[in-house]
Amino acid sequence: MDKGCISRIVSVNVALNTYKTQSKRYIPAAGSNRHIHLSEADIEKMFGKGFKLTKFKNLTQPGQYAANEKVDIKGPKGTIKGARILGPARGDTQVEVFYGDCFKLGIKPMVRMSGDLDGSQGITLVGPKGETILSKGVIVAARHIHISPDESKIMGIKNGDIVSLKKDGIRATIFENIPVRCGEGHSLELHLDIEEANAALVKNGELLEVVDIK
Amino acid sequence: MDKGCISRIVSVNVALNTYKTQSKRYIPAAGSNRHIHLSEADIEKMFGKGFKLTKFKNLTQPGQYAANEKVDIKGPKGTIKGARILGPARGDTQVEVFYGDCFKLGIKPMVRMSGDLDGSQGITLVGPKGETILSKGVIVAARHIHISPDESKIMGIKNGDIVSLKKDGIRATIFENIPVRCGEGHSLELHLDIEEANAALVKNGELLEVVDIK
Repeated sequence: MDKGCISRIVSVNVALNTYKTQSKRYIPAAGSNRHIHLSEADIEKMFGKGFKLTKFKNLTQPGQYAANEKVDIKGPKGTIKGARILGPARGDTQVEVFYGDCFKLGIKPMVRMSGDLDGSQGITLVGPKGETILSKGVIVAARHIHISPDESKIMGIKNGDIVSLKKDGIRATIFENIPVRCGEGHSLELHLDIEEANAALVKNGELLEVVDIK
Repeated sequence: MDKGCISRIVSVNVALNTYKTQSKRYIPAAGSNRHIHLSEADIEKMFGKGFKLTKFKNLTQPGQYAANEKVDIKGPKGTIKGARILGPARGDTQVEVFYGDCFKLGIKPMVRMSGDLDGSQGITLVGPKGETILSKGVIVAARHIHISPDESKIMGIKNGDIVSLKKDGIRATIFENIPVRCGEGHSLELHLDIEEANAALVKNGELLEVVDIK
């Protein structure tokens, strides 16, 4: 897509952060590193009573941030040191690792949508003041698209749609089977993990073309 | 593809290791870990004069094998311990790492076809008896398909073709822009690296469907 064209579209839709021309639609990508969402109880177990996460930087999704705090992920076979915590605290602790990490940790990899934790693998998290032993909560994140209700109208992409996105280049790739999550508090973005981003040389913020919607 | 159908095709073409039905063609995939091809001179620098690599196991491509020997890859920013050497020795040393590895090592990632080393990044390799400082030779391997001349005739896929292959499932993906290398000493196989394989949950030996040939 011509950059001038993108900038015109962006200037029209800047408040809505959407990317659409007459004939084509584009979605900005973000590759997630391994990270952890913690419950209040698990924060206290690992960082001490009354501890509050501190902000390192804001993420694209409104209200979400990377925290300064990190913990180790300790599996039956190996440990991954210094995995970053994302805030704010959630109801349930969720550990998002790469498919390849599961072999280092010694657990079964399960590709799941965020929040779909029933029957997922357990793990031990080790913080500076203690550890928490999880009976479930480890997932390999399934890729997905976030979109706000306003962006949804403009883009013609709605909650529950299944989208395919194309990346050109030496590692040209079409990512298929990407579910759309539309709601307040979402902002237009494809979430991949870094293994997926590297596989297609997708950089953060890069625009991928919508090639199919079901 | 129906497994019975695959087994019938395989039984017909077992000597040729091809996978083709009336209407569809499939190519078995292999995900490569990071690895190193060494010149005779670099083997001697790191393992001692007259040292010969010892076989750990044969690879699919005829004559190629994983060696028992490993070396460390030492970059300006970090080190990757214990990268496996593949044999036999080659004319030029070539270090194949993941895109993500380049950031740990502190070098610029360059996706290249095997053998295309001009202008590629240098690195230091550290063996048990010495080290070798390379001025070039580090690549992130571009995916590609190997095929023998006999398989080429049966499959209708020839040297220089650019193929797209599809993987179904929760991480459904079409890998596009895959060049074909046909020659004696090749055997039908898609070579991905593990980041690419993980991105689409491709297992070793899994059959991917040919969806486009240019």
